[in-house]
Amino acid sequence: MSTLKNMGEHEVIRRLTATLGTHSDLLTGAGDDCAVVRLADSRSDQMFTTDPLIESVHFQPREQPERVGNKAAGRILSDLAAMGAQPRWLLVNVVAPPDQEFEYLEKIYTGMNALCARFGAVIIGGDVARGPVLELHLFGIGELPAGSALLRSGAKPGDNIFVSGPLGCSMEGKHLDFLPRVEEGIFLRESGLVHALIDVSDGIATDLRHILNQSGTGAQLEADAIPCNGTLENALYDGEDFELLGTVAPDGSEALRMKYAERFGSEITFIGTITDEAGILKLSDGDDFRVIEAKAFEHFKDASGS
Amino acid sequence: MSTLKNMGEHEVIRRLTATLGTHSDLLTGAGDDCAVVRLADSRSDQMFTTDPLIESVHFQPREQPERVGNKAAGRILSDLAAMGAQPRWLLVNVVAPPDQEFEYLEKIYTGMNALCARFGAVIIGGDVARGPVLELHLFGIGELPAGSALLRSGAKPGDNIFVSGPLGCSMEGKHLDFLPRVEEGIFLRESGLVHALIDVSDGIATDLRHILNQSGTGAQLEADAIPCNGTLENALYDGEDFELLGTVAPDGSEALRMKYAERFGSEITFIGTITDEAGILKLSDGDDFRVIEAKAFEHFKDASGS
Repeated sequence: MSTLKNMGEHEVIRRLTATLGTHSDLLTGAGDDCAVVRLADSRSDQMFTTDPLIESVHFQPREQPERVGNKAAGRILSDLAAMGAQPRWLLVNVVAPPDQEFEYLEKIYTGMNALCARFGAVIIGGDVARGPVLELHLFGIGELPAGSALLRSGAKPGDNIFVSGPLGCSMEGKHLDFLPRVEEGIFLRESGLVHALIDVSDGIATDLRHILNQSGTGAQLEADAIPCNGTLENALYDGEDFELLGTVAPDGSEALRMKYAERFGSEITFIGTITDEAGILKLSDGDDFRVIEAKAFEHFKDASGS
Repeated sequence: MSTLKNMGEHEVIRRLTATLGTHSDLLTGAGDDCAVVRLADSRSDQMFTTDPLIESVHFQPREQPERVGNKAAGRILSDLAAMGAQPRWLLVNVVAPPDQEFEYLEKIYTGMNALCARFGAVIIGGDVARGPVLELHLFGIGELPAGSALLRSGAKPGDNIFVSGPLGCSMEGKHLDFLPRVEEGIFLRESGLVHALIDVSDGIATDLRHILNQSGTGAQLEADAIPCNGTLENALYDGEDFELLGTVAPDGSEALRMKYAERFGSEITFIGTITDEAGILKLSDGDDFRVIEAKAFEHFKDASGS
């Protein structure tokens, strides 16, 4: 018998994913920020994504409810942003104990609705059921022009790696109040210059590794170039920044940087390059080179929650 | 302060739903089996629905995992069937404690995948997170020709009310092994004869009341006509039958019955008529008439789970 604790989240997902079926309309299944499907007669592709938000795992009991709602909706909108998609619809399953205060739940909805409205998305349904702790399970639907989704699998050797903002901030409570990079994701897709994109939800070391694995490439990061709000360790492993991490061809990099700055008044930062050493993630730190291993928050394996 | 227990599931949903936004592409929001949205350039509408399945609430601990998976996927497919939709895609959020046995979870996926495959649907993503008990949160996507969804709101006075099979079976374990009426739902939509449709997940008394509320009508049921696998009380209140309950104009009723029997080798059963007495549900039982009140399993209000 194997337990989830022994296996860790990534291995559990890998083995469950291996059981799933396929379909010719399914362009991208499990393994990217969203699943991507094509509709036979539409010029749009559709993105689908889910995220759980569980009390004492993803937020603390008695946390301000509007902030909990912001995080719940923000995680979904960030997944859609990481494809370059326009968010459209969200559905919410609420689980709560019978003695849950209703007004607290209502304020969570205030937070979710406010963030959705900001980006033109609408919560359109869901369900409510009884359970031992407060949980929100969000489902998100986005769309974009057929064939234009920014996947994790598009990185090419020689690409420059960029991030949309400073990393290592989640310990300061930013993981509750962040603004998902929806407009930035759409802009990056529309630029036609970006090869691969992901949102940083597990630290850049882990999330960049997803790009490397899906693209069959390696990468070298420049420690001095990484914009940190804390230590370098924070930036590599501190999880929930919800900035965008992408790759762009060398001859498009300066144009992308300038157009992005013109549009948003802030800069993307180049932090390294994609290499052809499949699966190898190196860090150049002054005169020092080291290979960095995956080390993310994994549900089940960690003794304590966060 | 109000607690969920004081308010009951329906009131909680009603008040949370009241906070939600609207959009011109949203044809049907919260309040039907699925939300229905239109894509600008497609000849299809899309249906979205969610369902939670929680250990000790919707299934017992150590229940056969393939049956748990059948129920989890079956509930979603039944929601889609109740619109007459073709099911396309499902996503699954799993919540489980760290010591959850992986093989049990894998067999739940065996059950979900098998039922999806039977109806041409595919599980394409989801997430796994740590929590106190085993839960499955399913998200389903279906489609049908634009404007053809069978809503709860379409019933008209004079319509005959029909069900697709016997009621009151959920206490026999059928709530785990049922086959959702996907092909029947599509057939009923394609017939062009059906005015309103819902699946029976809370007993016909409660589910018919949803049609009455959404349609602004009343109904009179004939006790002798209701196909029961137990007592009449079972049929009215026993919840999870997952048969389809619909309404059809008097002049289309016989044609519908015959075509349905020809296609499926089983009969729809007429159990009453829609009236113009808004919100009033009457039961004719021999010489006796009585008005029947809503009395369903409500999460939070019930002292014991089931």
